[in-house]
Amino acid sequence: MLKDFSRPDDGLNKDERKAAKKEYQKQLVSLLQPLKEAKIPVIILVEGWASSGKGSLINELISEIDPRFCSVFSLDKALYDCDRYPFIYPFFKAIPEAGKMLFMDSGWLMRAVNEDIAGKYDKKTRAARIQSIRLFERQLKNNGYLVIKFFVNCSRKTQLETQERLLADKNTEWRVTRADILQNDNYKNYQDAFDSWMESTKGTGWHILDGDNRGTVSYDAFKIIADTLSRAIADGKYDAPEYEESFSPSDPLPSLDKCDLSVCIDDTTYKKELKKLQKEISELHDIIYRKKIPVVICYEGWDAAGKGGNIRRLAKPLDPRGFDTYPIASPEPHEKARHHLWRFWTKIPRSGHVAIFDRTWYGRVMVERIEGFCSENEWRRCYNEINEFEKELSDWGAVIIKFWIHIDKDTQLARFNDRQNTPEKQWKITDEDWRNREKWPQYEQAVSDMLKKTSTEFAPWHIIESVDKKYARIKALRIVRDALKRASKDD
Amino acid sequence: MLKDFSRPDDGLNKDERKAAKKEYQKQLVSLLQPLKEAKIPVIILVEGWASSGKGSLINELISEIDPRFCSVFSLDKALYDCDRYPFIYPFFKAIPEAGKMLFMDSGWLMRAVNEDIAGKYDKKTRAARIQSIRLFERQLKNNGYLVIKFFVNCSRKTQLETQERLLADKNTEWRVTRADILQNDNYKNYQDAFDSWMESTKGTGWHILDGDNRGTVSYDAFKIIADTLSRAIADGKYDAPEYEESFSPSDPLPSLDKCDLSVCIDDTTYKKELKKLQKEISELHDIIYRKKIPVVICYEGWDAAGKGGNIRRLAKPLDPRGFDTYPIASPEPHEKARHHLWRFWTKIPRSGHVAIFDRTWYGRVMVERIEGFCSENEWRRCYNEINEFEKELSDWGAVIIKFWIHIDKDTQLARFNDRQNTPEKQWKITDEDWRNREKWPQYEQAVSDMLKKTSTEFAPWHIIESVDKKYARIKALRIVRDALKRASKDD
Repeated sequence: MLKDFSRPDDGLNKDERKAAKKEYQKQLVSLLQPLKEAKIPVIILVEGWASSGKGSLINELISEIDPRFCSVFSLDKALYDCDRYPFIYPFFKAIPEAGKMLFMDSGWLMRAVNEDIAGKYDKKTRAARIQSIRLFERQLKNNGYLVIKFFVNCSRKTQLETQERLLADKNTEWRVTRADILQNDNYKNYQDAFDSWMESTKGTGWHILDGDNRGTVSYDAFKIIADTLSRAIADGKYDAPEYEESFSPSDPLPSLDKCDLSVCIDDTTYKKELKKLQKEISELHDIIYRKKIPVVICYEGWDAAGKGGNIRRLAKPLDPRGFDTYPIASPEPHEKARHHLWRFWTKIPRSGHVAIFDRTWYGRVMVERIEGFCSENEWRRCYNEINEFEKELSDWGAVIIKFWIHIDKDTQLARFNDRQNTPEKQWKITDEDWRNREKWPQYEQAVSDMLKKTSTEFAPWHIIESVDKKYARIKALRIVRDALKRASKDD
Repeated sequence: MLKDFSRPDDGLNKDERKAAKKEYQKQLVSLLQPLKEAKIPVIILVEGWASSGKGSLINELISEIDPRFCSVFSLDKALYDCDRYPFIYPFFKAIPEAGKMLFMDSGWLMRAVNEDIAGKYDKKTRAARIQSIRLFERQLKNNGYLVIKFFVNCSRKTQLETQERLLADKNTEWRVTRADILQNDNYKNYQDAFDSWMESTKGTGWHILDGDNRGTVSYDAFKIIADTLSRAIADGKYDAPEYEESFSPSDPLPSLDKCDLSVCIDDTTYKKELKKLQKEISELHDIIYRKKIPVVICYEGWDAAGKGGNIRRLAKPLDPRGFDTYPIASPEPHEKARHHLWRFWTKIPRSGHVAIFDRTWYGRVMVERIEGFCSENEWRRCYNEINEFEKELSDWGAVIIKFWIHIDKDTQLARFNDRQNTPEKQWKITDEDWRNREKWPQYEQAVSDMLKKTSTEFAPWHIIESVDKKYARIKALRIVRDALKRASKDD
C-alpha cells in the first residue's frame, strides 16, 4: 500500500492549489453547524510516520474551527495511564459527542504497529487486535460515527532529514523520541508493518497523504474531509444493518422457565456460609490483585429483587483500594451524546481491580427497549454490540460475572407494599417502579431474549433466585468465589 | 495529640456496645434519604497508621449503605496518575455530588506526612501545603460539604503484630508496602509528623479512634457519623461567611475606563507580527514542555468580541500533544451537584501542558451573578475562592494568563447584525445573546468588579482591545509570548 504509493498529479500549480485549499477550508467551516444539527460525531484519525508532520497537519486542519466543535487526541497523552486497560480503551474513552469532531494525532494503527514491532504480539494476540480494531470501527459506524482515516506517508530520506533538523535544537530534540529514531533505522520493517496492519484494518478505507510532497498534504486532507462531511450530511442518518456474530453460548443456557423460586436457606447455615464465603472471597481478592486480573460483576434484576443487599454482602470482604461499585441510572446528556457503551467503557476496572455494576449496559435491551428510548434497530443490534464488548473484556483477561436477580410478581408486590408502608424505606419506591411493574410481561420477554442472546461462554448469565434473599446472597457469593478461584489458578 | 490519646471508658460492655453500634448503623442508614433531600455532600476522611485497619473500618461503615449513596476513595489509587498535578488535585477531583457520601481511605494527611518524611518539603513548601489543605477544607465547608475526619491510632506494637501477620501469607504480603514497614521502623518520627500535621490542619477537628482497642473503633465511628449527620440535617444549609483574604493586586490594575478602543494595526504589520509571534510561541511551547511548566490561559469577553478567532491564532503554533482547548458552557447536572470549581479543577493541565479556556470559572461572577443562577452570598464569596484556586495553581508553578476581550456596545451590535444577516454565521447568534446585550450595564459592573477583585500579582487580567480583531490577536499573542519567555527563564 505504502511502497507503491505516489500521489497522482492533479495538474494544479502551487497558487491554484493554495486557492483551492482555502475554498475547502471555508467549506469545512461552513459544514460545522449542519454537522452539529445532523448530530453526526466525527473522528479524523491522522496516522503516519513519526516526524512526517502529523501534528502540523492537525493544527492546520483545526486552525479555523471553533473549539466548541472539535478537540484533539494525542496517542502519547492518551496512553499515559492505560497500560492496565484493554487495547481499545484509550480510543473508546476519547470518542466525541454527537456533532463534534475529534482529531487524533495517531491512534490504534500506531499503537498496534509499535507493540507488534516491539515483539509484544504472538499470532493469537495479533489476530485479537485486528478483530478489536474491526469491531471498534464497525460499532462506531453503526452508531452513527463518521471515521475518516489518513496515513501521512513519507520516505526514509524525508524522515531522516526532519529528525536531524529537530535533533539539532535542544528545544525540539524531545520531539524525536527513541521510538522515532528506531522507525528510521528500521524503516523497511515499519513499512511492512504499516502495510500489513493497514490492509487488515481497511474498514472504510485509508487515505494516504504524500508527506514527501508537503504542499499537497493539507490540501488533500481538507478536500477529503470537506467532501466526506458534505456527503454524510446529505445522506443523513446511517442505517446500520442488523447483524449477528456467532458467540458460543454458555452451557447451560439460563432460562427463567426452568427456575424454581421456592429454594431457601435456613438462618444458621446462612450465617455460617456467608462468613466462610466472605473470608474466601477476601483471600481470592488478594490473589486477583496480585495477579492483576480484572473482574467485572454485573447485577440486573427486577425492582425490589434484592440487588442492593446482595451487592453489599459481596462488597464487604473486598479491599476498598481494589474495587468500585457503580450505580447506573439513566444517562446524562454528555453520555447520551456518545456511543451507548461509552459510559461503561470509561468505568471498566484497571487490571487487578473489581468493578461491580448495580444495573448495567443491559438497560438498552430492557428499559430502553420497552420504553422506546432507543429505536428497534438500536436495541436489536445491541445484543451483538454487548457480546463484542464483553468478548473484548474477556480477551483482555477479565472475569465477567452476570447476575439476574429473580423474583416472581407476587413477591415484588409484597416488597413494594412493604416499602410503601415503611417510612424509612419509602424513598426506595417511586411511581416509576409501579409503572414498570405493569409492564411485567414485556420485561419478562426482554429478560428472556437477553439471557438467550447474551449468555456466552466467556460471559455467562446466572439466574439468582431471590424470593429468599439469603439464599440469593449465598448463591451469588458462591459463583463469585468459584469464578475467582478458577481465574486465580489459570496461568 | 496521638501520644496522649487514650479512649475514655464509656462503661459499656462488649454486648452493650455491639447493640448500640447496631442502632447507630441503623440510624446512619435512615439518614441517607434525608441527606439526599438536604443535598448535603459528605466526605468521611479515614486517616491513620498503616495496617491499623482503615480499610476494614470503611468496609464496615459502608456495609449497609446502598451504593447509590456512597463511593470509596483510595489514596494509592488516586495518586496513580497525579504526580504532575497540584497537591490538592486528586482530592478535589474526587469530591462527591450533593447528597452523596465519599469514604476516603487516607487522603491529604497521609499524602502530606509521607512526602514530608520523604524529605520532599522545605519550609516554604510545608507552609504552602498547610495553606492548601486549610483553604481546601474551608472551601468545602463554605460550599456545603460536610467533612468528618478520623484518625485510626495504634501503638507501634499493634502495628508490628498486624504487619507480621499479613507478611506471613504470600497473598496478603502485598498489603504491607515498603512505606508501611518504614512507618513501623520510624514510628516515633511518623508519630511526630502526624501530630504536627494534624495540629496544623485541625479545621473542624479530628476524631481519634483507638486502634489498639479494635472493638471500639467502628462503634465510635458510627456514633460520630450518625450524630454529625443528624445535626447537619437539622441545621440545614450552612451559612458561609463572606471573607476576604488579601492577595497582592496586579500592577497595573486593569480598568475598562482607561481603555482606548480605537487602537488598531495595519494589515502588513499584522501578518508579519502574527507569523513571528506564532513562531516564537511554538519554540517557547517546546521549552515549557521540556521544563514541565503548566500553563493556563483564560479567555473571557463580550459576546462577539472575537474570542474564538483569537484562540485559534494562539492555538495554531501549539503542538496538539501538549495542549487542550476547553469551551465552557453551562454546567451539566453532575457538575452542578458539586463545588462550582470542580469542573475546572478536573481540567487543569498536566505540568508541561497548556490549557486554553474559552470562558472560565468567572461565569459565576458574571452570568450566574446577573441571571441569579447562584445566591448573592455565593458569588460574593467566589472572588476569593477563585483567587485561592489561582494561587494554588500559581504556587504549583503554573503560568496563568487571563484575557478580557473588550469591545464597545456599538461594535457588538454591528457584529450581531452581521451574524444575523450572514447565513453561515447565524448559528453564532442566539436569542440569549440579544437578551444578554440588554443587560450591558450590569455586565459592565460585573466585569469591573471582577477585574478589581481578581487581578492579582500571580494571575493578572489583561484587557484586550478588540474592535480591531487583528490588533487584539497580536496583543494577546505578545502577552502569551512574554509570559512564556519569563517562565522559561525562571529556575
